[in-house]
Amino acid sequence: MRNQGIGSWPRRRARMTPKKVALTCDGRDFTYAELAERVDRLANALRGLGVRRGDRVAYLGANHNSLAETLFALGLLGAVFVPLNHRLTAPELQYILEDSGAELLVCGRSHRHMAEQLKVKRTVVDDEGGEYEKLIASGAPEPIDEEVSLGDLCLIMYTSGTTGRPKGAMLSHGNLTWNTYNLMVDVDLTSSEVTLISAPLFHIAALAQTLLPTLIKGGRSILEASFDVDRTYDLIESERVTIMFGVPAMFNFIAQSPRWETADLSSLRNLLCGGAPVPEPLIRRYQERGLTFLQGYGMTETSPGALFLSAEDSVRKAGTAGVPCFFTDVRVVTADGRDAAPGEPGEVIVQGPNVMLGYWNRPEATAEALRDGWFHSGDIAIKDEEGYARIADRLKDMIISGGENIYPAEVEEVLYGHPAVAECAVIGVPDERWGEVGKAIVVLRPGMSATAEEIIKFFDGRLARYKIPKHVEFVDALPRNGSGKILKHVLRERHG
Amino acid sequence: MRNQGIGSWPRRRARMTPKKVALTCDGRDFTYAELAERVDRLANALRGLGVRRGDRVAYLGANHNSLAETLFALGLLGAVFVPLNHRLTAPELQYILEDSGAELLVCGRSHRHMAEQLKVKRTVVDDEGGEYEKLIASGAPEPIDEEVSLGDLCLIMYTSGTTGRPKGAMLSHGNLTWNTYNLMVDVDLTSSEVTLISAPLFHIAALAQTLLPTLIKGGRSILEASFDVDRTYDLIESERVTIMFGVPAMFNFIAQSPRWETADLSSLRNLLCGGAPVPEPLIRRYQERGLTFLQGYGMTETSPGALFLSAEDSVRKAGTAGVPCFFTDVRVVTADGRDAAPGEPGEVIVQGPNVMLGYWNRPEATAEALRDGWFHSGDIAIKDEEGYARIADRLKDMIISGGENIYPAEVEEVLYGHPAVAECAVIGVPDERWGEVGKAIVVLRPGMSATAEEIIKFFDGRLARYKIPKHVEFVDALPRNGSGKILKHVLRERHG
Repeated sequence: MRNQGIGSWPRRRARMTPKKVALTCDGRDFTYAELAERVDRLANALRGLGVRRGDRVAYLGANHNSLAETLFALGLLGAVFVPLNHRLTAPELQYILEDSGAELLVCGRSHRHMAEQLKVKRTVVDDEGGEYEKLIASGAPEPIDEEVSLGDLCLIMYTSGTTGRPKGAMLSHGNLTWNTYNLMVDVDLTSSEVTLISAPLFHIAALAQTLLPTLIKGGRSILEASFDVDRTYDLIESERVTIMFGVPAMFNFIAQSPRWETADLSSLRNLLCGGAPVPEPLIRRYQERGLTFLQGYGMTETSPGALFLSAEDSVRKAGTAGVPCFFTDVRVVTADGRDAAPGEPGEVIVQGPNVMLGYWNRPEATAEALRDGWFHSGDIAIKDEEGYARIADRLKDMIISGGENIYPAEVEEVLYGHPAVAECAVIGVPDERWGEVGKAIVVLRPGMSATAEEIIKFFDGRLARYKIPKHVEFVDALPRNGSGKILKHVLRERHG
Repeated sequence: MRNQGIGSWPRRRARMTPKKVALTCDGRDFTYAELAERVDRLANALRGLGVRRGDRVAYLGANHNSLAETLFALGLLGAVFVPLNHRLTAPELQYILEDSGAELLVCGRSHRHMAEQLKVKRTVVDDEGGEYEKLIASGAPEPIDEEVSLGDLCLIMYTSGTTGRPKGAMLSHGNLTWNTYNLMVDVDLTSSEVTLISAPLFHIAALAQTLLPTLIKGGRSILEASFDVDRTYDLIESERVTIMFGVPAMFNFIAQSPRWETADLSSLRNLLCGGAPVPEPLIRRYQERGLTFLQGYGMTETSPGALFLSAEDSVRKAGTAGVPCFFTDVRVVTADGRDAAPGEPGEVIVQGPNVMLGYWNRPEATAEALRDGWFHSGDIAIKDEEGYARIADRLKDMIISGGENIYPAEVEEVLYGHPAVAECAVIGVPDERWGEVGKAIVVLRPGMSATAEEIIKFFDGRLARYKIPKHVEFVDALPRNGSGKILKHVLRERHG
């Protein structure tokens, strides 16, 4: 095949195990042969709609076979997949559509109504009307013979930043291929994996740490539109799930269920946990059931694996994010650029074949993030004597809530639009359920008034629900340093 | 690290599992941390001896930690490893030393006497005198910071050909890295592998299908200088071996042992078999003990994996070599260049990131083998309706005896040097023990005489023992076609 990218993976896997089930979705099984044929047909049909090498095509929807098929079909054409976070509001989504220049939107049935609010040249909806299925049926089953190499752009995944506007991280086919290799070094995968994917595939973790590795090994991925505790227990028991990925909040919900004590969890071999460090009580609770978390540290820009904590080290080194993934190098460097000594904090920088190509149409942001071949994460870590890194703080002012990154700058920008708000700052505060939630510290304009409820309601429709602060506190003034910069660490001490 | 090649693997693995045992050799265990430090020291010491990027360094000896260490240390320097087949005679070895331009020879204690017969600028012997260990101790433990990329040349492995002179297949770091990836897709490896390596590491199969995959996963490789049935049983039982690679002859010896019925083989998970197709009676005999062979098809030039037959298909598709490895493409093409239909014979051609860079200093042989990006194997195969290829015959006139390739042209060249031989041809004949052995069909000069024993004795010292024909038959004339070409297929019918 002239295609070395991940678009060729269904066809490559179908050569080996055509009759094994690749995907289970909505109670329907797709074998590798079926998946490969559907992807070939979809690619031909998309080409018929005018999609060419380099064109961006967005996908909006919950986990579904149509998401995976769109990803692979675009890969066959050398076109670019732009997965959208369906928790975003219409203006947020519109911004990404316009920034990426996507002219075609494939939309899952779950998000048809949202798609109707978006301005895009053409939309294909996978709904009961069967538009998406008709598109697949209309495509020729002949393989596409487009040359695609590992260096070619595969997808653009948007990630928010301190600037307040999301940036598109450009990941190549090689980035995702090498991340899969790293994962296979770190995790003992087999050809009989049954992988439960209920974390959203529009985030890099579910896509790159579960869907792609399962597919390359010839396992079966069960795609779930959303996470539900009871449904998770049902699937683990009935489908004999071997691997699942989740954020700590998901594993917390599972452990708090009344079914925790009695469920048959004996099929589970690997629990991959990401998005935030797993609290130690949760680690212990799972260990009592003989279950170990595989944790790490990564981000969209590194496809995502950078550090990994092996099962063997999960207890001894609990609280750390582990050591560098095999083909990836991670340093912790001080402000003056030298490697931090053990115990000394420094910024995490990452180099390797899984590091993104850059940010889409953002040469300045790219130049700032990728310096001398190293991606600068903005996260602060401390390595111990054995080289295990503990993520200590964030240079980037970021809140992690239920596995979603929230950038206070973006929230503050919206809040400054409220007529009664003179000044504001958003910080993360601990939350038993979500790990962290946002808290807005607000200074009202003289003579104006607003209640906490009014402030929270103001975000409706302006910001995705998960980004909206759960708490509001009013103060007379914000603490600032000499040059006027708000001192967030003081706010965290006072209001955290 | 600026080194993306396999020379960095011990150091990369030592970041993860410094205290796990990487190699066991001569009763000594080397942890990953120890291996990484020894490789760093050796690289610095070799640099001190003048070894620079691109320089070739040969290794002569049985499987030993010094072989693996030399491979990795050269990889750190961007220098080139030239493993020598220690079954060759002095003139054969001298030819390879000169062809490769190796000025330094590292020699295992097992082959010191052979090394003394070879002309090379400098030799380092790993013997009781401790020259090799002193060299390691003399090197600084600081990591080498040479930039090595996947496209750089890693090793030159000599493979005989129909021309009678061995050619050096140039394998890059990327070739070996991608072959490891392919293998990890095909074989379910774990971090607790115990791999018995008694097949010689100077051949690609043991090196690339067992040593490198075991190392990347953090398993333990037991290096044995030679294959011995009783020793194999001892190690399987005492070390709980999980994987071993062998040629069919080795697995045949094991099955014929009196220990076959009673030995505890419960630790064995994967038996990798290569070099020649496994006879079906042997497959059945192992299946009766619950053991499945993982077979494939490959060659030095493809690092080596091209086709692979999965455990699931090993019975249903016994006798075939399977389907293409994941990242590799394999076609069966007719003489006029089209894809052969199912059932129709054609030449096996291979494309992918594991295909060699070319033959060392042989632009013409390279151009003939690598055409339009495809490696032309010279082997004939027939695909079935499901795409499984059966290797049917060899365009290249080759004998496979106990896993070693014998090229009749090379044997005939020596035999023509016998004063009594007027004409000769060497063919392969079936042999219960070795699969095939060579048989010389000889026409004596008028008035001259020689016995079969005299003919066989003539090869002593001129040709490696395994290449020497086991049978000699005298005839009055060789069958030839109109243009004078010897008709080997007629010889095989008459004398096979």
